[in-house]
Amino acid sequence: MVDFNDVKIAHERISSFIHRTPIMSSTAINEMCSANIAFKCENFQKVGAFKYRGATNAVQSLRDEDANRGVVTHSSGNHAQALALAAKIRGIKATIIMPSNAPQVKKNAVLGYGAKVIECVPTLIARETTTQKVIDEEGPTFIHPYNNEHIIAGQATAAKELIEDTLSPLDIVMAPVGGGGLLSGTAISTKALSGKTTVIAAEPQGADDAYRSFKSKTLIPQTAPNTICDGLLTSLGDINFEIIMAKVDDILTADDETIKKAMRLVFERMKIIIEPSSAVCLATILLNPEIFKNKKVGIIISGGNYDLSALF
Amino acid sequence: MVDFNDVKIAHERISSFIHRTPIMSSTAINEMCSANIAFKCENFQKVGAFKYRGATNAVQSLRDEDANRGVVTHSSGNHAQALALAAKIRGIKATIIMPSNAPQVKKNAVLGYGAKVIECVPTLIARETTTQKVIDEEGPTFIHPYNNEHIIAGQATAAKELIEDTLSPLDIVMAPVGGGGLLSGTAISTKALSGKTTVIAAEPQGADDAYRSFKSKTLIPQTAPNTICDGLLTSLGDINFEIIMAKVDDILTADDETIKKAMRLVFERMKIIIEPSSAVCLATILLNPEIFKNKKVGIIISGGNYDLSALF
Repeated sequence: MVDFNDVKIAHERISSFIHRTPIMSSTAINEMCSANIAFKCENFQKVGAFKYRGATNAVQSLRDEDANRGVVTHSSGNHAQALALAAKIRGIKATIIMPSNAPQVKKNAVLGYGAKVIECVPTLIARETTTQKVIDEEGPTFIHPYNNEHIIAGQATAAKELIEDTLSPLDIVMAPVGGGGLLSGTAISTKALSGKTTVIAAEPQGADDAYRSFKSKTLIPQTAPNTICDGLLTSLGDINFEIIMAKVDDILTADDETIKKAMRLVFERMKIIIEPSSAVCLATILLNPEIFKNKKVGIIISGGNYDLSALF
Repeated sequence: MVDFNDVKIAHERISSFIHRTPIMSSTAINEMCSANIAFKCENFQKVGAFKYRGATNAVQSLRDEDANRGVVTHSSGNHAQALALAAKIRGIKATIIMPSNAPQVKKNAVLGYGAKVIECVPTLIARETTTQKVIDEEGPTFIHPYNNEHIIAGQATAAKELIEDTLSPLDIVMAPVGGGGLLSGTAISTKALSGKTTVIAAEPQGADDAYRSFKSKTLIPQTAPNTICDGLLTSLGDINFEIIMAKVDDILTADDETIKKAMRLVFERMKIIIEPSSAVCLATILLNPEIFKNKKVGIIISGGNYDLSALF
């Protein structure tokens, strides 16, 4: 299992490549929630999401002979851009398998970082066979978006910075959960650095496989997710699930309407842009005021890649 | 004339009330502009705009016997909210004269800070007679939104912080110009702290009274402004104009389409929310690349109060 020593090594490895993102707060939101909330702003991270931490750790960990054969992944989200940029920075090739129905703007973003995009039919089977074909032909290293120990150790550095940069101890640390890369890493850092701090995850009700898996202590795959949180649609990984069962204290869920309300609060009160997946933690605070009352809470704002074209 | 000593006194007076806002940058925008741009983020200031600096300086400067009679202003914009909060913090009464056609959301914001709102017919004459009536009846101190030395000294503290917090010297410091409170203050701080730095203002083409006044060396009032920059519609004040003529090196203008493009760039690349008035400086850089090429530029992002309801 990944441990905090791996996180410390990851942090040393990636710190010159990443932003040490700021921690922000809002008097208005604190008053509204009767809590003291520190937002760790990974929307300001390179490529606009925490995913760049894990991708950089994975790419920079490769031995030269492996790195020279490049890296491959399947993703239409932030991991795709993160791996593309991390590979570009190391000067190696990245191949990204994307479903043919992924928005052109996402393909363009990956192409803009110099990666190769291969489209496939939008099914799990097609994604995996296409990935395997690339591996068989060219030998790149497969970098899973979350079910990968280097990815987990990299994502864990966000919570490490949050705790190191917060002056007084946090009662609760929160992260959203999709595949579980960020959450498992957050739990490792939090329990290592601040053992009395509770780790609470937040998940959209329309994609609540982690919630159901956590409560039933059995890994249940996500089927037919339905939520505006496009970063949280995937199933939990088994490596992630093991860490989550060992180190996470609870998982709360929120409906999309409350998630939108929380997102709007952050936009209007904090003047920062976050993606829907990043608003789930605040949404669960709005829904469960009794849990958070008078608590000092750290929230990982996971990213800021949101389509703003309605405004322009 | 206000001088830098007034700015230093203002800064000491207000520093415990205001945020020392962060300075941000964007690799993508720097590459696009072939420049090195430091954005001073007053969108993160209290009430979402630099206006809180000047309002706080004006309110905190009042002698107790004057303060006890309260303050009054006419504004439907950020100065209204800024004065309302500054008065609330000092525990005194604020009366804000607003045109009857001001959006309800702006009235609510001012009411939310505990100020009294008096509506008037939306003309300059009605605004001034209504204000005078309040002064005659209750004796509050009138705090003009920009043509006021305490306001200018307060707004000047934003550029003071920008220069103090920037490691290497800035070639150019930029601010948008409407009434001229921010610009005149910015010029005072910049010329005092960094004499070799050029001060360039930016103004929307659809409200270019400052540009025309500056070029003709004669104060020309704004008539029938037409721009998305709702914070920059007013005429230059005479106190502001005198300082601008003495200390500002140039004024550039930009059309609304380029302003929108610049605003979108900041939203998408920097993940922060700014109001149209704050995008004018970057718009003029996009329109005049030869002036800014390879320069280190500081821009005051004036505020972040923008209607986001299209997104929600």
